[in-house]
Amino acid sequence: MTLKVYLSGEIHTDWREQIIDGSGDLDVAFDGPVTDHGASDDCGVAILGAEPNKYWHDHKGAMVNAIRTRKGLADADVVVVRFGDKYKQWNAAFDAGYAAALGKSLIVLNPPEHQHALKEVHAAALAVAEEPGQVVDVLRYVLTGRLPG
Amino acid sequence: MTLKVYLSGEIHTDWREQIIDGSGDLDVAFDGPVTDHGASDDCGVAILGAEPNKYWHDHKGAMVNAIRTRKGLADADVVVVRFGDKYKQWNAAFDAGYAAALGKSLIVLNPPEHQHALKEVHAAALAVAEEPGQVVDVLRYVLTGRLPG
Amino acid sequence: MTLKVYLSGEIHTDWREQIIDGSGDLDVAFDGPVTDHGASDDCGVAILGAEPNKYWHDHKGAMVNAIRTRKGLADADVVVVRFGDKYKQWNAAFDAGYAAALGKSLIVLNPPEHQHALKEVHAAALAVAEEPGQVVDVLRYVLTGRLPG
Amino acid sequence: MTLKVYLSGEIHTDWREQIIDGSGDLDVAFDGPVTDHGASDDCGVAILGAEPNKYWHDHKGAMVNAIRTRKGLADADVVVVRFGDKYKQWNAAFDAGYAAALGKSLIVLNPPEHQHALKEVHAAALAVAEEPGQVVDVLRYVLTGRLPG
Amino acid sequence: MTLKVYLSGEIHTDWREQIIDGSGDLDVAFDGPVTDHGASDDCGVAILGAEPNKYWHDHKGAMVNAIRTRKGLADADVVVVRFGDKYKQWNAAFDAGYAAALGKSLIVLNPPEHQHALKEVHAAALAVAEEPGQVVDVLRYVLTGRLPG
Amino acid sequence: MTLKVYLSGEIHTDWREQIIDGSGDLDVAFDGPVTDHGASDDCGVAILGAEPNKYWHDHKGAMVNAIRTRKGLADADVVVVRFGDKYKQWNAAFDAGYAAALGKSLIVLNPPEHQHALKEVHAAALAVAEEPGQVVDVLRYVLTGRLPG
Amino acid sequence: MTLKVYLSGEIHTDWREQIIDGSGDLDVAFDGPVTDHGASDDCGVAILGAEPNKYWHDHKGAMVNAIRTRKGLADADVVVVRFGDKYKQWNAAFDAGYAAALGKSLIVLNPPEHQHALKEVHAAALAVAEEPGQVVDVLRYVLTGRLPG
Amino acid sequence: MTLKVYLSGEIHTDWREQIIDGSGDLDVAFDGPVTDHGASDDCGVAILGAEPNKYWHDHKGAMVNAIRTRKGLADADVVVVRFGDKYKQWNAAFDAGYAAALGKSLIVLNPPEHQHALKEVHAAALAVAEEPGQVVDVLRYVLTGRLPG
Repeated sequence: MTLKVYLSGEIHTDWREQIIDGSGDLDVAFDGPVTDHGASDDCGVAILGAEPNKYWHDHKGAMVNAIRTRKGLADADVVVVRFGDKYKQWNAAFDAGYAAALGKSLIVLNPPEHQHALKEVHAAALAVAEEPGQVVDVLRYVLTGRLPG
Repeated sequence: MTLKVYLSGEIHTDWREQIIDGSGDLDVAFDGPVTDHGASDDCGVAILGAEPNKYWHDHKGAMVNAIRTRKGLADADVVVVRFGDKYKQWNAAFDAGYAAALGKSLIVLNPPEHQHALKEVHAAALAVAEEPGQVVDVLRYVLTGRLPG
Repeated sequence: MTLKVYLSGEIHTDWREQIIDGSGDLDVAFDGPVTDHGASDDCGVAILGAEPNKYWHDHKGAMVNAIRTRKGLADADVVVVRFGDKYKQWNAAFDAGYAAALGKSLIVLNPPEHQHALKEVHAAALAVAEEPGQVVDVLRYVLTGRLPG
Repeated sequence: MTLKVYLSGEIHTDWREQIIDGSGDLDVAFDGPVTDHGASDDCGVAILGAEPNKYWHDHKGAMVNAIRTRKGLADADVVVVRFGDKYKQWNAAFDAGYAAALGKSLIVLNPPEHQHALKEVHAAALAVAEEPGQVVDVLRYVLTGRLPG
Repeated sequence: MTLKVYLSGEIHTDWREQIIDGSGDLDVAFDGPVTDHGASDDCGVAILGAEPNKYWHDHKGAMVNAIRTRKGLADADVVVVRFGDKYKQWNAAFDAGYAAALGKSLIVLNPPEHQHALKEVHAAALAVAEEPGQVVDVLRYVLTGRLPG
Repeated sequence: MTLKVYLSGEIHTDWREQIIDGSGDLDVAFDGPVTDHGASDDCGVAILGAEPNKYWHDHKGAMVNAIRTRKGLADADVVVVRFGDKYKQWNAAFDAGYAAALGKSLIVLNPPEHQHALKEVHAAALAVAEEPGQVVDVLRYVLTGRLPG
Repeated sequence: MTLKVYLSGEIHTDWREQIIDGSGDLDVAFDGPVTDHGASDDCGVAILGAEPNKYWHDHKGAMVNAIRTRKGLADADVVVVRFGDKYKQWNAAFDAGYAAALGKSLIVLNPPEHQHALKEVHAAALAVAEEPGQVVDVLRYVLTGRLPG
Repeated sequence: MTLKVYLSGEIHTDWREQIIDGSGDLDVAFDGPVTDHGASDDCGVAILGAEPNKYWHDHKGAMVNAIRTRKGLADADVVVVRFGDKYKQWNAAFDAGYAAALGKSLIVLNPPEHQHALKEVHAAALAVAEEPGQVVDVLRYVLTGRLPG
């Protein structure tokens, strides 16, 4: 059983690498969004033509990114959504809702201070973790039945 | 043609009333979440038993609220998601993602300063408005073909 | 908003009547299986011809009952599954699994001593109650936003 | 044609090994739940944090197990559900209902004394067997057209 | 609960009338194909232009009839398929397969001499009857829980 | 049986009125796009704010119109797509493809000179007509079994 | 592009071999039912226990065969259904209806004398052939764009 | 991540080759219709028998081509639809609508003079390009996160 795992959300820390590295012994295929912030913001206008209006500049980019995001979410067995300390992170919550409506198994990763604000997202999740290592432990258990320690 | 419209998101201003009042001449059936903040937070423990742990207190409530929210989103033709000035509002973005994955027509209502942070949500929307009156105008046009003014 | 509620499971106590009576002021349409135990067991052979073999006697009846059960589950917004004190009640758990796979909002009603044995069923539920009155309170809150007391 | 077969239910006898061993010559990919009873009960708290309340202890574990179970059921062509002699086994019946609603081919394996209590589950099955060897014979016939003996 | 019942198959005897008349006290909405044999054969060319080639004459008609048939099957809760004594009746078996793939509850009505030839169709049915009155009895039981006699 | 019919395509002649008037005795609920060409082109900017760039002017309008079109197509039993003498009419062909993918019964209405260019669209249709009166005759036959003349 | 082709219907002539042999140069994966008539009739009782009643003898076998048939139809891109000269062949028409409802591309293969009786089945087909070689030619064209001769 | 890309529309220039050649370093699996115009027009009659009537000549061919087209669209992650300078190109717009209804990521490729006529098609697209090289750049960014230049 190969588990397809999509890593959504925060792109400013190395949580994806921690999960991928920690899962090196597991049969997992990881996917996720483009994590180069600048490229992600500008991909639309860089390829399809400049827009003087910031709304359309952003819109073109968000739509090109959606090609990758929607395939990643549609193909995944498990969607991990990480909420960090900064920014609005509405794209992360949007991905969580999208994944939930598709019936994907949702794992939410967030610092404890966000607990109350995330309660509707948590209500759709099968696991809520605070550390990337816990996500690795969940994936290992799901694939092999082995618990940590 | 009756249009079923779900009004999701911010619960601290009267935007729902503005839209419902403005649509009084239209064949629209509105639905939305429970907007009593206290009841919404406590419904789980008030009915199903107290929880000393805040996480489970919130969880029980969020799950009971999901009974209403999921039916509302599933039944809707159009989902309007309002982002306000305050709070994390991840439940609003979650609903937007959920609605998008179900193929619902999405209308996003937000102040202009949130434009960049909402670009992924906007990319899934068929209309982006700043004022409740614009949502009314969209609904009127969709149902009757009449434009404002 | 009319809420369609299917009442599945145990047929030897008056829990259905308690929920239906308690919801008299609410816009709920209730449905459920045939609760006449004898008719339910014998409907297949009574209509479609006797079977000397007990397996096929039961099978014919279970298939006729499935016509009603599947429609009820498919049409429902909310499925309430009651586990009682006696019998195997695998049909109740089967209905719960069926409803979960269809994405229905699941409410489980059971005495506390069954908690551990029902943990997989509870994991798919949005509310777990011990008394029929709690189910009524959930339905009232979902439809009206009012809490008990 | 590779047949994907999920082996659900009872975890205290070696019926899974009997089926897997007996199918050694067949193009079948088997999957199933974690069968280490202790790990299965404790996986939630062992990874995601202790819970003093038994309900939430169980709940956390059941939700982590659901990540594996739902993928297994969703990917399967055939779901075999085994009912044994002991315990409530509501999780087995839940899986059967879940599989039926997904349109999976269902094979039920149970001792004859459970026949009447399982009639609703049997009504959704394409084969009902008493011995693991019969399941192997069904899989062999389905894949190769060869009958036993 | 209104039960939507589609009556498919043989059009040369009055079995539809027997079922509809016998169900006069029940909350059933019946639908079915056009039963005027001549109109059914010629509807395509009569409306959309003559075809000298018999294949296309028949094809045009079959496609126009499919507008009605597909809606009827898609809307139905229960599909009754009647096999009579004469003709190939491949359209009846086609409707049965179509209904089965849509997950409809299937009732097959046929004389006993067709039993062996219909075994694959029966394997998808929830009830197999020989007389129209038995279909009425099934519908009455499903809707009211009452058995005949 | 009420038949829901969506009338898509050309908006410069009175073909919709001919069909609606001709069907006055039938149980049909008609729907269709906004047919005021100017309003349809400008609805986006008139409600949601001006765009100096023609592409985004058009885009905003097309997305608002999509709210109506998608609901109409999704709710329809039958989609009639009319191709006229002028313009590119790619929106008509787009609607035909959209309807076909949703499994709707498709009726195409076009002058004979477009036959070759429409062959892929015709291949997805259940009826191809040249005159609005033929569409009325199809609807009457589908609903009542009566043929013209 | 590998094309998955299910070969349904008549099992008394070598039409399957003709198609498989003729497609030796093509990227096609063929599947189909068990074609050993005796094994197909008796598989249920041979594996799961004898039945004195002919109806249940047949039923048990038809249900075991359905495990193979449903997977084959569900996995296929193209379903070829062959109608021969003899027998009722309702299982062939059932498979055609089942495939049509799943949206599979349907190819029907039948002698010309069955044309009128198969008109509803033909109306759901994308190709109607009289000889196995024509089916091979269709598959070759679909995969390579090459026409015969 | 392998991206499956279907290249629909105009068959008279080498835009497909430009995209395929430009994507030589990417993990993309391309598919598309038969682009031999003559074979595409005549495949039906060449294989399944001549038709004196031009409508049925075209119809037979369009239906055979649909076997390939529907599989290609159904399997694709991304559908690129090219509109050229000539012809009606209703098949291209039909494919775009079909792909949109299936929820595929749509990229439209057209010369700027078609902008207004394509506004409804553009409203369903995630990217609109004028040159094949831009499509390559989108695919490269989606797969690797790298921008051109």
